[in-house]
Amino acid sequence: MTVRETVDAFHYGRFHLVQPKGIGHRSGMDAMLLAALVTGDGPMRVADLGAGAGAAGLAVAARIEKAEVLLVERSPLMAGFARKTLALPANAALASRVSVLEADVALAGKARIAAGLADDVFDHVIMNPPFNDRIDSRTPDALKAEAHAMEHDLFERWIKTAGAIMKPGGQLSLIARPQSIAEIIAACGRRFGGIEITALHARAGENALRILVTAVKGSRTRLALRMPLVMHEPGQHDFTPFVDDLNNGRAAYLRLPR
Amino acid sequence: MTVRETVDAFHYGRFHLVQPKGIGHRSGMDAMLLAALVTGDGPMRVADLGAGAGAAGLAVAARIEKAEVLLVERSPLMAGFARKTLALPANAALASRVSVLEADVALAGKARIAAGLADDVFDHVIMNPPFNDRIDSRTPDALKAEAHAMEHDLFERWIKTAGAIMKPGGQLSLIARPQSIAEIIAACGRRFGGIEITALHARAGENALRILVTAVKGSRTRLALRMPLVMHEPGQHDFTPFVDDLNNGRAAYLRLPR
Repeated sequence: MTVRETVDAFHYGRFHLVQPKGIGHRSGMDAMLLAALVTGDGPMRVADLGAGAGAAGLAVAARIEKAEVLLVERSPLMAGFARKTLALPANAALASRVSVLEADVALAGKARIAAGLADDVFDHVIMNPPFNDRIDSRTPDALKAEAHAMEHDLFERWIKTAGAIMKPGGQLSLIARPQSIAEIIAACGRRFGGIEITALHARAGENALRILVTAVKGSRTRLALRMPLVMHEPGQHDFTPFVDDLNNGRAAYLRLPR
Repeated sequence: MTVRETVDAFHYGRFHLVQPKGIGHRSGMDAMLLAALVTGDGPMRVADLGAGAGAAGLAVAARIEKAEVLLVERSPLMAGFARKTLALPANAALASRVSVLEADVALAGKARIAAGLADDVFDHVIMNPPFNDRIDSRTPDALKAEAHAMEHDLFERWIKTAGAIMKPGGQLSLIARPQSIAEIIAACGRRFGGIEITALHARAGENALRILVTAVKGSRTRLALRMPLVMHEPGQHDFTPFVDDLNNGRAAYLRLPR
């Protein structure tokens, strides 16, 4: 099968992404906002679970100079795009800090470790799990089956893996649909505390399109529902300045002061 | 034991509430916002679960002329205050449409029905379940034990009762703390759909203090996270006009158009 591809610039050209065209998932704002949840400027190890072509992980690497990023992706096709992305000359400044692991995030126990995901390694784990919404009528059956990862217990399995591979005190960050909120909180369970949820609305008055969630491994701090982010001012097509900064790697979305 | 009491006006004097002073739970804005979630103007039967002195139920009766309201309260002390409230001459215009049932909302099956809570009766069920936060150091041990209703599975039990006593298509409305959001959604489970959640923030930029939740028995509509309500404009002590209207029975908080 021949897959057409595109090369897209992110963060005003600070990195580029090779992505399939017409099939699979194409990254965009979700991945950029997810990357904005990672804060800090010291050395850190970051795992991007379900990384696709590597958009969120590369956005972290582009903004945080000392971040080392592991892109974890089950699909050989998408992992191949991640490798093509890292091979782009335009990404040479980042590529030495980013690597690709072709593995299934949903693996557990010894199978997970054997696949290359060891315990207590990462400071940050980020995830933008696949949504059913991404699977549209144009998707071929084989890829549809591959992408149809929104199993009933997806968040339980992915967040379990995140908890296992993260150092104590490490931070989980994810972006998801609002209707997954209860499943996400339940999956955090006793593994994570200090859950902070920020709704993302396209415009004031409209329902949330996404939720941004962070949590800390081993924390006992209670959940906080933060003020939402609104992407557009009334009547404006452009993003609000803060959302634009998050989208372009010029700002991080900080957790609450403790 | 002698319990001091107060008589407080709500909705600009459209009804009054007899409440204990110094012990137990005193109603205020939470109950008024909860009442604002009940919409419609035709005849309707409304159950207020854990009604306390009857604040939310009376607020519904005051705003909706054809509403018949059952106040369900386990505590004999608080049910007594609800009866005193209904006996106030100032509440004469409402009292004929409001009654008190001394029963434990957490009862199930035949025990629930025997206690006076039959199946498929109500168009609306509202609840403002007790929070642990309400139990302060001044509370005597006996009342503390009585009020300590925030059992692990409180929402599961209360929402199960709500689903049972409500007509198909009936509406559940509740107000709760943000950290209960997952428990509430899980308890709605397959009983309710069309869950709509609105966060309530004191001021823009601050974390949510409460969530307002409505859901419809038997609905399959997916969850929506709505724009939050903000109580105060920056630098202002007064409520915003819309929140003030909700608080004073001059407006209802409508569900999304379908």
